[in-house]
Amino acid sequence: MTDDRTGLWLVGARGSVATTVATGLALITAGGAALDGLVTEHPDLAGADLVPLDRIVIGGHDVSEVALVKRAAQLADAGVIPHAALGLVTDDLDRACSRLRLGHRPGGETQPEAVDRLAADIRAFAEAESLSRVVVVNVSSTEPVAADDPAHASLDALESAWAAGESPLPPSSVYAAAAFTAGAAFIDFTPSTGARLPALVELAERAGVPWGGSDGKTGETLVKSVLAPMFAARSLRVRSWAGTNLLGGGDGATLADPEAMESKARSKARGLEEMLGHPVDGPVHIDNIADLGDWKTAWDHLTFTGFLGTRMSMQFTWQGCDSSLAAPLVIDLARLADLALRRGEVGPLTALGFFFKDPVDSREHRLFEQHRILTQWATAS
Amino acid sequence: MTDDRTGLWLVGARGSVATTVATGLALITAGGAALDGLVTEHPDLAGADLVPLDRIVIGGHDVSEVALVKRAAQLADAGVIPHAALGLVTDDLDRACSRLRLGHRPGGETQPEAVDRLAADIRAFAEAESLSRVVVVNVSSTEPVAADDPAHASLDALESAWAAGESPLPPSSVYAAAAFTAGAAFIDFTPSTGARLPALVELAERAGVPWGGSDGKTGETLVKSVLAPMFAARSLRVRSWAGTNLLGGGDGATLADPEAMESKARSKARGLEEMLGHPVDGPVHIDNIADLGDWKTAWDHLTFTGFLGTRMSMQFTWQGCDSSLAAPLVIDLARLADLALRRGEVGPLTALGFFFKDPVDSREHRLFEQHRILTQWATAS
Amino acid sequence: MTDDRTGLWLVGARGSVATTVATGLALITAGGAALDGLVTEHPDLAGADLVPLDRIVIGGHDVSEVALVKRAAQLADAGVIPHAALGLVTDDLDRACSRLRLGHRPGGETQPEAVDRLAADIRAFAEAESLSRVVVVNVSSTEPVAADDPAHASLDALESAWAAGESPLPPSSVYAAAAFTAGAAFIDFTPSTGARLPALVELAERAGVPWGGSDGKTGETLVKSVLAPMFAARSLRVRSWAGTNLLGGGDGATLADPEAMESKARSKARGLEEMLGHPVDGPVHIDNIADLGDWKTAWDHLTFTGFLGTRMSMQFTWQGCDSSLAAPLVIDLARLADLALRRGEVGPLTALGFFFKDPVDSREHRLFEQHRILTQWATAS
Amino acid sequence: MTDDRTGLWLVGARGSVATTVATGLALITAGGAALDGLVTEHPDLAGADLVPLDRIVIGGHDVSEVALVKRAAQLADAGVIPHAALGLVTDDLDRACSRLRLGHRPGGETQPEAVDRLAADIRAFAEAESLSRVVVVNVSSTEPVAADDPAHASLDALESAWAAGESPLPPSSVYAAAAFTAGAAFIDFTPSTGARLPALVELAERAGVPWGGSDGKTGETLVKSVLAPMFAARSLRVRSWAGTNLLGGGDGATLADPEAMESKARSKARGLEEMLGHPVDGPVHIDNIADLGDWKTAWDHLTFTGFLGTRMSMQFTWQGCDSSLAAPLVIDLARLADLALRRGEVGPLTALGFFFKDPVDSREHRLFEQHRILTQWATAS
Ligand SMILES: NC(=O)c1ccc[n+]([C@@H]2O[C@H](COP(=O)([O-])OP(=O)(O)OC[C@H]3O[C@@H](n4cnc5c(N)ncnc54)[C@H](O)[C@@H]3O)[C@@H](O)[C@H]2O)c1
Ligand SMILES: NC(=O)c1ccc[n+]([C@@H]2O[C@H](COP(=O)([O-])OP(=O)(O)OC[C@H]3O[C@@H](n4cnc5c(N)ncnc54)[C@H](O)[C@@H]3O)[C@@H](O)[C@H]2O)c1
Ligand SMILES: NC(=O)c1ccc[n+]([C@@H]2O[C@H](COP(=O)([O-])OP(=O)(O)OC[C@H]3O[C@@H](n4cnc5c(N)ncnc54)[C@H](O)[C@@H]3O)[C@@H](O)[C@H]2O)c1
Ligand SMILES: NC(=O)c1ccc[n+]([C@@H]2O[C@H](COP(=O)([O-])OP(=O)(O)OC[C@H]3O[C@@H](n4cnc5c(N)ncnc54)[C@H](O)[C@@H]3O)[C@@H](O)[C@H]2O)c1
Ligand code: NA
Ligand code: NA
Repeated sequence: MTDDRTGLWLVGARGSVATTVATGLALITAGGAALDGLVTEHPDLAGADLVPLDRIVIGGHDVSEVALVKRAAQLADAGVIPHAALGLVTDDLDRACSRLRLGHRPGGETQPEAVDRLAADIRAFAEAESLSRVVVVNVSSTEPVAADDPAHASLDALESAWAAGESPLPPSSVYAAAAFTAGAAFIDFTPSTGARLPALVELAERAGVPWGGSDGKTGETLVKSVLAPMFAARSLRVRSWAGTNLLGGGDGATLADPEAMESKARSKARGLEEMLGHPVDGPVHIDNIADLGDWKTAWDHLTFTGFLGTRMSMQFTWQGCDSSLAAPLVIDLARLADLALRRGEVGPLTALGFFFKDPVDSREHRLFEQHRILTQWATAS
Repeated sequence: MTDDRTGLWLVGARGSVATTVATGLALITAGGAALDGLVTEHPDLAGADLVPLDRIVIGGHDVSEVALVKRAAQLADAGVIPHAALGLVTDDLDRACSRLRLGHRPGGETQPEAVDRLAADIRAFAEAESLSRVVVVNVSSTEPVAADDPAHASLDALESAWAAGESPLPPSSVYAAAAFTAGAAFIDFTPSTGARLPALVELAERAGVPWGGSDGKTGETLVKSVLAPMFAARSLRVRSWAGTNLLGGGDGATLADPEAMESKARSKARGLEEMLGHPVDGPVHIDNIADLGDWKTAWDHLTFTGFLGTRMSMQFTWQGCDSSLAAPLVIDLARLADLALRRGEVGPLTALGFFFKDPVDSREHRLFEQHRILTQWATAS
Repeated sequence: MTDDRTGLWLVGARGSVATTVATGLALITAGGAALDGLVTEHPDLAGADLVPLDRIVIGGHDVSEVALVKRAAQLADAGVIPHAALGLVTDDLDRACSRLRLGHRPGGETQPEAVDRLAADIRAFAEAESLSRVVVVNVSSTEPVAADDPAHASLDALESAWAAGESPLPPSSVYAAAAFTAGAAFIDFTPSTGARLPALVELAERAGVPWGGSDGKTGETLVKSVLAPMFAARSLRVRSWAGTNLLGGGDGATLADPEAMESKARSKARGLEEMLGHPVDGPVHIDNIADLGDWKTAWDHLTFTGFLGTRMSMQFTWQGCDSSLAAPLVIDLARLADLALRRGEVGPLTALGFFFKDPVDSREHRLFEQHRILTQWATAS
Repeated sequence: MTDDRTGLWLVGARGSVATTVATGLALITAGGAALDGLVTEHPDLAGADLVPLDRIVIGGHDVSEVALVKRAAQLADAGVIPHAALGLVTDDLDRACSRLRLGHRPGGETQPEAVDRLAADIRAFAEAESLSRVVVVNVSSTEPVAADDPAHASLDALESAWAAGESPLPPSSVYAAAAFTAGAAFIDFTPSTGARLPALVELAERAGVPWGGSDGKTGETLVKSVLAPMFAARSLRVRSWAGTNLLGGGDGATLADPEAMESKARSKARGLEEMLGHPVDGPVHIDNIADLGDWKTAWDHLTFTGFLGTRMSMQFTWQGCDSSLAAPLVIDLARLADLALRRGEVGPLTALGFFFKDPVDSREHRLFEQHRILTQWATAS
């Protein structure tokens, strides 16, 4: 690889995940941090020709205007990033902050106007920073489940609706459209709609860019994706699987909204049935506990039967720092989508299912199978 | 496959695991039970040409003389097997009981005498029941760690020691020698020494039979073998892993003996380091809690670091019925070892690592990798 | 005490709790069971002059018609009562079964008719069995939260509404009215409305009988009632307390109905704030997991701060058999309400708060304070 | 109360607990911290005439020479004390640091010399700071279980042994002797021997000072002291209680030493039997997991039977910061022992059992009973 530089354009660039990404990249580049958590640094992916970490430039959109250094200080107080890091990265964060632009919220501008403005921001970023390619990653607040709309069905239908002054897209899809329009790859790390509408799929096709998602698999669902196959491999029949997720922070507050929660819970529930081959009793709760901040606690309880129908159970508690778990994956995804852009791949990146709760165009949810697919794809020459 | 019948000769034939095996086979044959827990009934192994369940005949050795129906009644009271099953299987259990012979305990007879007597029991069983092949599975009480002895180093050394009137083998190895002498396959489901001595390996070679082990992977270690690879695949660094196992029953009482416990704990600890690629802090305890009976409760707590060194943790509690988990695997192992016998395979069955905490001649402990190896081996034509 | 006999009239007499009560009393009287779980057999209450267990006679109402022996067999299969017990108690259960009468469901009869009919059943029971006193305990399915109604405000208002052909009472209150009309004490072991309406309170007063409730404290809430005071006594500030209850059985199915669940969740949440002196973040979920049957699993997670604001957490999992926990308390309550009847006490039995999630006329939820009050009241001469 | 000042002399003054005490007092006095965790600030003890927090002066002994500000910085990195606090308390910590003196370690000086030297340090502290009274609290590393020695039996025997050049006391008892010699109260927050020898008891008597202990009750044992009475009050029979404690830090390293661990485990096991009235199966493990630092994780699992012998279980995980839990109790104990000194109380302070795993001269381990006794004693006029 030459001395190309790649842009990582974050939607929700002032949030916890995005700030952890920016702080981490700065700290790693400054030599002050280990590479823990980065899948793309694993020996298994050594053969993949990925952009070096110090050639990734950060920019992004947000509707908040808080300074990155202030968000980073809050994250240090919360134990998400090390206190000692703050001093080392202030300048880098201030520089990244100067590259952030105001995002899009429903109202104010029409959707075609928004797409054009956001795409122009991305293109200006690429030019100003002399970037060879840009990957847009959505890490903004989960939005409510979008209502179905006939304008979603095709690019023609969407453009007609726009011409008629309608605004049929949820914000995440506006961002996806802007990314495609700017010739960037788009990755949705959230459970929002993003590119998953026929109209958007067509737009990506027309722009000749790849896209992927959805919803980063960082905690309870990650564990599920190895435990469920374990029971299946041993012919132990899982009979119920109940889960409770407690979390605070921006994400906790958003998901306390029942509409957003529905979107998240649905993306969590999918997969279990597919891994086991039959439906399983049991609800998944997501509760906002302000006191927990970014520290998510998930409890899962499952029952299963073995030989002669004997009933047994297992439970686990996962206590993870969500932003710490998500941030390296966002960087991994940027490097892998960059690879796809370089290779000229177009459309849904089904090989990235390893990273997602709700992988596009795939019913494979078993982690190690996804890992095999990813490694094969990334290291193919 | 023709109308061959295969013998399953259980060492420890009146224990919890063995009684659950006998009850389960009888119940399944009578049509009164589902096939849950049997790996060899999984679609993945459909291509393997295995002996049908109703063509497996049970016999075995034990040093206790309790009737199988009595042990089965105790297991029903403890919730291990269904109460309703008892009536259906009394005759079958009584028939199996009539095929059990007195086992070997140090003292009383010399080791060569014991080997001959036990081997004769196995051969007589094969003849009386017109069996094509016999698989011996050790499910007797875990024995204390055996002291090293020069006589273990080769078959010659062993035979010289015997000639000199010494008794250098632990009981499990006497059983392995008897199995080989009788031309049977030998599987060690316990952490005892069994066939894992150069002298015994030679004997198996000379007899031209296959053998495998050790120590059935049924609970905490099973879960470890999917969770550790999960952390590795995500580049999350596991920093400590502590485990506590509470169990009662015969197995709990045996393992309360510090010497036997050492043998078990060691076989549990192995593997974690190999899956993670580095040593990990943390003890594994095994405690005898009489009140729990066959119901083992294991608690594991592990810490790991992610991006920028943030510390996180996970804990799980496994509440399994040990005999229910073990029994179907014993049946699976009998069918697979029977396949190896038919194929004329000789020596260590490394493809069976999927079933064991301490797989012979293999450093692969990751469950799904073991599953792949098993499936490939079993379905190879 | 003379050779008085006391009637225990169960509303919901064919349910899990009631069947466990009937089986247990029969078994204890037959000498086949220990007295575990019975608070009234604790040395602390030795001084109380309570009716002996073998002088309690069971009768009751239910809208189901399943035979008690059949319900008992199901409970034995589920591990709630010992299999060996069944044979010993069949006759006793059949006799109790013959004393059960058809209960009341909205519609069919008017409410005054229902009260008269149900009261007549209770009086006939007392006469037929030569009982000195009768205690009615409601252990029927939790009903949906009752809508407010002006007719609840006074006995006059209620009687006027009845005269106008209205049916303003929920079923549990119809049963309370019948108990009072028959001169019996009434205890509500469920979260339903029962006697907690001004009109019913007046009716108890007029009838000169005592009553108590509500909602037996058997699991998660029991633990809360000692843990919350522990944190308070140590000046540790509880900041969040989230709970998830998984249960199956009849109760699980009823509570899966969001309306009934609201009633239960509310009665669980009350109390925590009062024990801690401030509101606490955190939801309580109740989920129906059919596979668990009577075996309730509750997980609670709480966060607290100590010195200098350091954040800490605790979590517990309670795995209890609900009917086993409830049944002895129902017997305790019958004996204690019988004592109150003998003493001529009238109105709310505030000294029984120890037994309830939502104690009538009391804001004291701390278990050991409730225990002190109970002991003092019961042993007063 | 007048403008008296009281000295709090810490043995182990540079350890985690002691440093948290010093930092906390400084921060509270500076107005920068809430009073969470301080039992003596609870309304229940409002009537007690205790020395105000800003009139407590800190001094102490340690064998390490690390600066308090450095220890405080480490504790802030570990999340034990808030980072923001460090700046506010540097001066105070440096002043406290200048009042620390070199402690005693076996060898170097004879025991009578050590007692005199340490006592002189305490007296000089009292004089230099114009203190009315001094309370010595032992928060140094847990020492190995001391061997029995005839010299422990009486003060005469001890003095004869000393005269004969022997050194029969463990270090904690040397400190207790020094405290008594200096006319100070002595509190043992550790499981070490301290004043619990007849010779020392006599010495306290002769010096006319009070003393108390042992082993601060801060985590698992605290929870036990409310749960065990809960089961007892409900007549639920506890059948097994197993515990595993994972901890790091200085305390974790010390307790990894099997001899010290024995001392701690024994003090933890005592009490459970006394609360339940019968012995209970189940081991208590203490494991050193360096990665956890001051953050202790304890898992307890207990089984119990209820009505008709049904078996149930409960488990809890406690995740506490040991120094945060211990420090406020050390301050509470200093204030309460100061009260005893002012009142002229002499000998064992049995009213302080609330604070200890192994309360002197008391078999009462139930928390709320201990709380009642404490409150009554402290608020008596
Ligand atoms: N952390 C994880 O483990 C994880 C896993 C899967 C998915 N996610 C998803 O990642 C997203 C980010 O999580 P977070 O914890 O950083 O949340 P956060 O609340 O800290 O940050 C979200 C950011 O998005 C911004 N935003 C909101 N609406 C916007 C809009 N219309 N345009 C641009 N920016 C907008 C907000 O101002 C905020 O800065 C969430 O949707 C979350 O569900 C996180
Ligand atoms: N159940 C599991 O999940 C599991 C998993 C791995 C390994 N194991 C091992 O399987 C073995 C059996 O477990 P279990 O629960 O059935 O134990 P158990 O105590 O119920 O049965 C052991 C039987 O072995 C017999 N025995 C003892 N010494 C013997 C000898 N010298 N010769 C012949 N028989 C002898 C005993 O009499 C008894 O009948 C144990 O070694 C256990 O460690 C079990
Ligand atoms: N078990 C516990 O620990 C516990 C604790 C607190 C409260 N409770 C309450 O006790 C009650 C009984 O629990 P369960 O597990 O026995 O439930 P269950 O479903 O097994 O039994 C309820 C019985 O009530 C009967 N019933 C329903 N409507 C009736 C009516 N209108 N009149 C008369 N009978 C009627 C049903 O037919 C059934 O037989 C529930 O309300 C539950 O919430 C139980
Ligand atoms: N933190 C808790 O919750 C808790 C509860 C009960 C008991 N304890 C006990 O409190 C004690 C202190 O715990 P910590 O976490 O602060 O430990 P720590 O290791 O951080 O500190 C112990 C200090 O004692 C010093 N020390 C060792 N030997 C000494 C001697 N002979 N004379 C004087 N000083 C000596 C060490 O140098 C060190 O500074 C331990 O014994 C612990 O078991 C703590
Ligand atoms: Na066993
Ligand atoms: Na410590």
